[in-house]
Amino acid sequence: MSYNPSLMPLVAITQQAMSEVNRVILDRLQSDVQLIPQLAGHLIAAGGKRLRPMLCIAASMVSSQNIKKPPRAALYLAASVEFIHNATLLHDDVIDSSDQRRGKQTANALWGNEASVLVGDFLFARAFELMVETNDIWVLEKLSLAAAQITEGEVKQMSMLGRPDSQISDYFSVIKGKTGVLFAAAAQTGSKVGGGDSDLCNAFYYYGLALGNAFQIMDDALDYGASQRQIGKDLGDDFSEMKITLPIILAWQESSYKERKFWERTLRAGNQQDGDFEKAREIINKYSCIERSLDFATSEVNRASQAIAVIPKSKLKDALIEAAKFAGLRDS
Amino acid sequence: MSYNPSLMPLVAITQQAMSEVNRVILDRLQSDVQLIPQLAGHLIAAGGKRLRPMLCIAASMVSSQNIKKPPRAALYLAASVEFIHNATLLHDDVIDSSDQRRGKQTANALWGNEASVLVGDFLFARAFELMVETNDIWVLEKLSLAAAQITEGEVKQMSMLGRPDSQISDYFSVIKGKTGVLFAAAAQTGSKVGGGDSDLCNAFYYYGLALGNAFQIMDDALDYGASQRQIGKDLGDDFSEMKITLPIILAWQESSYKERKFWERTLRAGNQQDGDFEKAREIINKYSCIERSLDFATSEVNRASQAIAVIPKSKLKDALIEAAKFAGLRDS
Repeated sequence: MSYNPSLMPLVAITQQAMSEVNRVILDRLQSDVQLIPQLAGHLIAAGGKRLRPMLCIAASMVSSQNIKKPPRAALYLAASVEFIHNATLLHDDVIDSSDQRRGKQTANALWGNEASVLVGDFLFARAFELMVETNDIWVLEKLSLAAAQITEGEVKQMSMLGRPDSQISDYFSVIKGKTGVLFAAAAQTGSKVGGGDSDLCNAFYYYGLALGNAFQIMDDALDYGASQRQIGKDLGDDFSEMKITLPIILAWQESSYKERKFWERTLRAGNQQDGDFEKAREIINKYSCIERSLDFATSEVNRASQAIAVIPKSKLKDALIEAAKFAGLRDS
Repeated sequence: MSYNPSLMPLVAITQQAMSEVNRVILDRLQSDVQLIPQLAGHLIAAGGKRLRPMLCIAASMVSSQNIKKPPRAALYLAASVEFIHNATLLHDDVIDSSDQRRGKQTANALWGNEASVLVGDFLFARAFELMVETNDIWVLEKLSLAAAQITEGEVKQMSMLGRPDSQISDYFSVIKGKTGVLFAAAAQTGSKVGGGDSDLCNAFYYYGLALGNAFQIMDDALDYGASQRQIGKDLGDDFSEMKITLPIILAWQESSYKERKFWERTLRAGNQQDGDFEKAREIINKYSCIERSLDFATSEVNRASQAIAVIPKSKLKDALIEAAKFAGLRDS
């Protein structure tokens, strides 16, 4: 997979540390129970951008004022954050009954739901073991709070299924939980183990939160074809799962009586036919709901940059600001 | 539900502390996302014996030499252990597709698998938040290790499904993981927050491990009707799910060629017909596999008593020894 260029500066600066994080990840996937490294390895090897651990490492580097070598605790923390993320992916795929993720068959499609639930639990437990190794109770407090908030966000998302008349504030509370808080905690605790004081940890918390929100807003917009370049990407997963995301909420608010009937049928009753997704995109485009979603993402990107305005100018700071832009404009 | 009398002394001594543990549990179930306290409350209110938190409290009382009032950290820890246990129950019910637990409809039957997976994750995260409040990194280390071992045990159990020719040692490794280690960690960490030294914490670890093993061996034997008194209890769940437990492993080892064909058909191929469960019980009884299972349980009970032989005589010590007997002879 190709990276969007604007993530490259951060990738370059953290590259060596990230290869150490990788070693920690592979090491801690080990288990006498063979199925565990097999299944978890399938997912984790598939890769993804590793944005969360990268932010964790970067925040620790800024805070320790050493971009050569992050503190050992930051490596554990970065691996831990990636484990939590992958645990939630495994459980999400069970919940969504997804067959594909990142262009590969999902673990649940290959090994069954049972294995995905259990290996998710294993990754979650291993994540806590890794956190304990940082030997910092404050870090444990922040990350266990984040873990609880993630599941609250997911449960809230579930309870919004099929309700196109949901509020924008509900959407933001969902994405903060399911995505924002883990980015936030990754950056915040990374800063802490790098020696950041409470102001700096806070700055990184809000940076991560805003970047994570931007990332999720874009993800949700891309599912309705936000970009011209999405060749080969499946669209419409959220629509077919009756997930209520920002483009839908914005569209519902503008919709005519007849259009609301359409949303009621397709998203509340779940009665979908051929051509409905195209019709949904038509209404969404009619009211410029993708552009308006992107505006929300841009606000978050600005918020992320402002949050770390306090840190002195450096290549790494520039790379972090670019990474936030990348998150909010993912394939422009 | 009626308690077996032999658990009563422990229940009586820990009663007041356990009502405080209950308050912590109810308090920490709260969430702005309504479905969470609803669903988790359904399970936790259904009760069960709360053996794990009770052992945690008792170990802290022995170790602090104060049976009037356990340390505050022990209350958090006890609630935490109960949360972990209930998280695994929620996930197990998804995995087993169970409709009933403790005589009530399961959460997944009422709210769907998605909710059970997520609320299980929530309880798990809350458990870690509670542990953090003990402010004891050693406790966190032991409990996060236990959490990882629980899932390893469950994955191993899953990979043994349909394999009646499994080894007794594999069975013991499964039950140590899925049941023993949480009892062990509950007692061990309870002792620690009560001020127990490393010998005492160790003694409680092995006490809990053996008691938990005894508990699981009995549970597995009861599913084949170990007791005359099991009126109203569903039998045969393990058989219909092709779970390989001790009675089956023992029976397989003695079985004739023809009997092995029967096990192959029913447990490996999963081709089960009316009358097969009765036939299974016949073979199991022919080779005294229930009695021999109970002998294994008795060994564990003895091991539990021996583990805490070091602690000075007291009513609480007697109650703990009786509790181990209860676990190994659950409705005699």
